Amino acid sequence: MKIAISGKGGVGKTTFAANLARWLSKKAITVLAVDADPDASLGTLLGISEDVLEDLKPIVDMKALIEDRMGGSGTYYALNPNVDDILDDYSIPMGTLRFFRMGNIKGGGTSCYCKENSFLQALVNSLILGEQDTVILDMGAGIEQLTRGTAQGVDVLVIVTEPTKVSAQTVKVIQKLALELGIPRVVVIGNKVRNSKDENFLRDRFPKEQLIGIIPYSDELMEMSITTGNGELPAGSLSAQLDSIYQEIIGEGR
Amino acid sequence: MKIAISGKGGVGKTTFAANLARWLSKKAITVLAVDADPDASLGTLLGISEDVLEDLKPIVDMKALIEDRMGGSGTYYALNPNVDDILDDYSIPMGTLRFFRMGNIKGGGTSCYCKENSFLQALVNSLILGEQDTVILDMGAGIEQLTRGTAQGVDVLVIVTEPTKVSAQTVKVIQKLALELGIPRVVVIGNKVRNSKDENFLRDRFPKEQLIGIIPYSDELMEMSITTGNGELPAGSLSAQLDSIYQEIIGEGR
Repeated sequence: MKIAISGKGGVGKTTFAANLARWLSKKAITVLAVDADPDASLGTLLGISEDVLEDLKPIVDMKALIEDRMGGSGTYYALNPNVDDILDDYSIPMGTLRFFRMGNIKGGGTSCYCKENSFLQALVNSLILGEQDTVILDMGAGIEQLTRGTAQGVDVLVIVTEPTKVSAQTVKVIQKLALELGIPRVVVIGNKVRNSKDENFLRDRFPKEQLIGIIPYSDELMEMSITTGNGELPAGSLSAQLDSIYQEIIGEGR
Repeated sequence: MKIAISGKGGVGKTTFAANLARWLSKKAITVLAVDADPDASLGTLLGISEDVLEDLKPIVDMKALIEDRMGGSGTYYALNPNVDDILDDYSIPMGTLRFFRMGNIKGGGTSCYCKENSFLQALVNSLILGEQDTVILDMGAGIEQLTRGTAQGVDVLVIVTEPTKVSAQTVKVIQKLALELGIPRVVVIGNKVRNSKDENFLRDRFPKEQLIGIIPYSDELMEMSITTGNGELPAGSLSAQLDSIYQEIIGEGR
């Protein structure tokens, strides 16, 4: 299953992606977690140190290597994470979780990230996964990775939103773009929900078949984004709420 | 003076840009406020209705028109907001403030925003302003508009940050990119600062010649971003704090 996480800046995309990746990994599922945001922070939230992150080769550098092995066809069919040694050189292993990043930070005024996005799209489309293997793409803030089509090959697009007008507007735009991309399943997660007013704000805007989960505002989750976490999943009642959201996303219990 | 506002997603860039634009406008300064984020919300935070925003032609559509008048030279020298009628057709006037947006929302998988960014850069570089006229560019989240060079021609880059590790990391990256772009003045504003621990977190990372202002966490400011404001600037003690930050940015009292 290939899952992309999207939404407006600051809604909690990366914290959500990091916790979902950890949860899957705890279930012994192979997880390929890809930071697709040039302003990267998924690695940091997964608890990887800055030194290690800086040394990690970005997946865009695989392009020549893969084209060479595949005969330069431009399609990367049958690329299998379980058998392909190329992926090992471009990832940081953490148990059954492997972390990748899309591209390097470029110089000021030198370039866009079109090449990186285009390669990532081709790669995601061509990855053939084992039955339980999961890819998680943590997308950049906003809509450009959708207009670029980076998320085209995913099975599920998770749009994270705060209970604010501008964040909800972004959800509507992303939903429209996802429809145009032909993404089979698009779900919305309400995040940082403080009270019933916040919850009603979201429920008024998104029908329950779209809005599959509400995450209450939590100092624990905020602290994770501030201190970048200790590698542990949230505990207590929040844990149960998150579990049911993750299960809904991967289609368990349906 | 040309000012760009940058920072990680969700730190409060757009709320800051909207209030700065209103404050300048109240001083009867001509302000050209440009929403340079494809996932646009500056117009909404300035209190412009969605219907009006949807009908506004994006500035990228000016390209052919300007090239035609300028003889297709590819440089837009001597473009002056006080004399140029072209700008009128592409802006929403609000007193001495005029609102522009960079581009339309595109279809899913159709394109990047490279063309829009490239045109905006040329436009900002070629605008000749009256002594007190100000351009405010509200940039997209993250770093790509810096690696693209969209903000190259500005006089001041304001980087807004929360007191979190990932947000502060983004500041460091943006500072480096701004240096490479040759932006003459780069300042940092701490936002959503809840206590002295938060303030110390920022002061430990950024020397005081960089960190020129601290904005306390404020329900009033949060409410602005939620309800999209009533067009009024914040009142009370917060108002005085914001005033001194704005004055510092535009170089008053130095």
